[in-house]
Amino acid sequence: MLERTISWIDGGPDKNSAKLIDQTKLPLEYTHVIVKTCERMARAIKTMEIRGAPAIGAAAAMGMALAALEYEGKTREGLIVHLERSKRILDSQRPTAVNLMWGTKRLLDKAASTAGTVGEVVEALIAEAKAVADEDVEINRRIGQHGSTVIADGDTVLTHCNAGALACVGYGTALGVIRGAIEAGKKVKVISDETRPRLQGASLTCWELKEDGIPVTQIADTEAGLLMRMGKIQKVVVGADRIVADGVFNKIGTYQVAIMANFHGIPFYVAAPVSTLDLARKMDGVEIEQRDEWEVKTVFKKVQLSPDGVPAINYAFDGTPMELVTGIVTEDGVFTPKELLERYQAKG
Amino acid sequence: MLERTISWIDGGPDKNSAKLIDQTKLPLEYTHVIVKTCERMARAIKTMEIRGAPAIGAAAAMGMALAALEYEGKTREGLIVHLERSKRILDSQRPTAVNLMWGTKRLLDKAASTAGTVGEVVEALIAEAKAVADEDVEINRRIGQHGSTVIADGDTVLTHCNAGALACVGYGTALGVIRGAIEAGKKVKVISDETRPRLQGASLTCWELKEDGIPVTQIADTEAGLLMRMGKIQKVVVGADRIVADGVFNKIGTYQVAIMANFHGIPFYVAAPVSTLDLARKMDGVEIEQRDEWEVKTVFKKVQLSPDGVPAINYAFDGTPMELVTGIVTEDGVFTPKELLERYQAKG
Repeated sequence: MLERTISWIDGGPDKNSAKLIDQTKLPLEYTHVIVKTCERMARAIKTMEIRGAPAIGAAAAMGMALAALEYEGKTREGLIVHLERSKRILDSQRPTAVNLMWGTKRLLDKAASTAGTVGEVVEALIAEAKAVADEDVEINRRIGQHGSTVIADGDTVLTHCNAGALACVGYGTALGVIRGAIEAGKKVKVISDETRPRLQGASLTCWELKEDGIPVTQIADTEAGLLMRMGKIQKVVVGADRIVADGVFNKIGTYQVAIMANFHGIPFYVAAPVSTLDLARKMDGVEIEQRDEWEVKTVFKKVQLSPDGVPAINYAFDGTPMELVTGIVTEDGVFTPKELLERYQAKG
Repeated sequence: MLERTISWIDGGPDKNSAKLIDQTKLPLEYTHVIVKTCERMARAIKTMEIRGAPAIGAAAAMGMALAALEYEGKTREGLIVHLERSKRILDSQRPTAVNLMWGTKRLLDKAASTAGTVGEVVEALIAEAKAVADEDVEINRRIGQHGSTVIADGDTVLTHCNAGALACVGYGTALGVIRGAIEAGKKVKVISDETRPRLQGASLTCWELKEDGIPVTQIADTEAGLLMRMGKIQKVVVGADRIVADGVFNKIGTYQVAIMANFHGIPFYVAAPVSTLDLARKMDGVEIEQRDEWEVKTVFKKVQLSPDGVPAINYAFDGTPMELVTGIVTEDGVFTPKELLERYQAKG
């Protein structure tokens, strides 16, 4: 059983802090970051010490709780203004993952709807942030149970990036589907795209599956097509950072995996909580985050790949149109893209 | 003007050696390897100090000339037996690139067809190896001239791996097409897939295009699909390690680029000399080289990506079926797959 990716510290010297597994150090070092301020949480999100859409949602909620704790004024109204400012800071760290805005909005709404003193509102926000984290694990277990039905005994499943326990508070979305299938008694093997440039597939997915004793093999992102052609991949399951009416935003490279799966007739599933849905929007209304070119030009600044003076493009996400998606797994069930819209569009 | 990737040294202290640009050191160091024995040439091919199908053809020829120089016997027949053994050693270094066997066979045939003393045969083999290198540059210039016709003024061309001057003796095949288009007065930009695991796109293609002043941008292999969808890529041009009747073998990842180009309606061209053709064979008759897993699990053994104990798959090449190929550029012209068979199948 893996430790939670992010948890709230209730007592001891670090009381009222958030504790994160430092994902920039894995797989070689297993260390933690203690986050005591909203500003430090913003930095943890930006630098990807914590990443993965659901985990970012919990980090956003805890960041808001930390902001509330930092408030030095006396009035509930002043606290709300302070939290609105903190929300803008947190929201600006990663523009593509909708869970970030979802998490900060949930805490801001909680503050607005809670009567009482500043101290009472702050306590309510801490409780709400902890509830976001607890619910995430429960939601992912339900995603895993529903998703397990699309995996057959003996399947080898390709996944891209890390939509695992480390991308959530625990259990995982795409890897939650794998865990759910295994808990249902099925034999499942995983092939993990290494996922350049940040290599979360190699470092995080391989690490957490190995820790859980689930068979996993790393490949370079260039190998997925050949392995599909060879018949070595039966299903693709990935996570999502934002699901809009006509497509799914997820880690860069997901779109091409979907094209390849479609070409080879391999089912392509997306696993994500309802908090990832943004169905009022369409693909062309979503900004795709571009990150610093050093992520592409180097490997973690440790090895330089291309010569000085050659520019690099670094889009962090891409959008996969719904035509390429076989099904979407949420905590409520497995849906075709059409069924998903019918079920949830009122939400938008 | 780039120096030749491989050249024969005719005089001075290293007379009768081959001089290679050490491609494992680029882009950070520009150094040379002086190869004095056939065994050392075999190692240079294995470790990819020299790589790229046409360059390997020239290295194979020079390796055979070095083997001839090492022969200590007195008879022409003994020399032939010695060369047959050397051919087997050289051929076994990289099983997929047909130019390797093509180069060693050309030199063995030359030995068999040359009358005279051992010394005279050795001299004939040295001259033949030098001719292979000279012809390669000339052939690539013709590939560039023919291929330039498929590139439009203003195109941005995606290429994968390095099928450039560094993959040949000089000028390049896929990058020869780019150079040909630029020499024909067209404005062309290049996007270079970094090409994990060995990253020849980032290190070699970016290096040689920058040296030549041709605009080049590095991307992670995961970004090609998004850029195609955004309309930022007008053509794909790649090289080939072996062209069989029903497909093209090239660096791992080429196949998925072809699938993506097909999905987006982007023309996909292969540029390769006639020596790369093996039209008597079909795709399922070609062995795909699998290399050590450290190439995938690490970046040049400098950064470990996945945890110890997690296996990795490392196929060095893949096969792209002819249905996905718009055209093949050889030194004789630009051909559809069907025209290629009609023109060259007798060769098989």
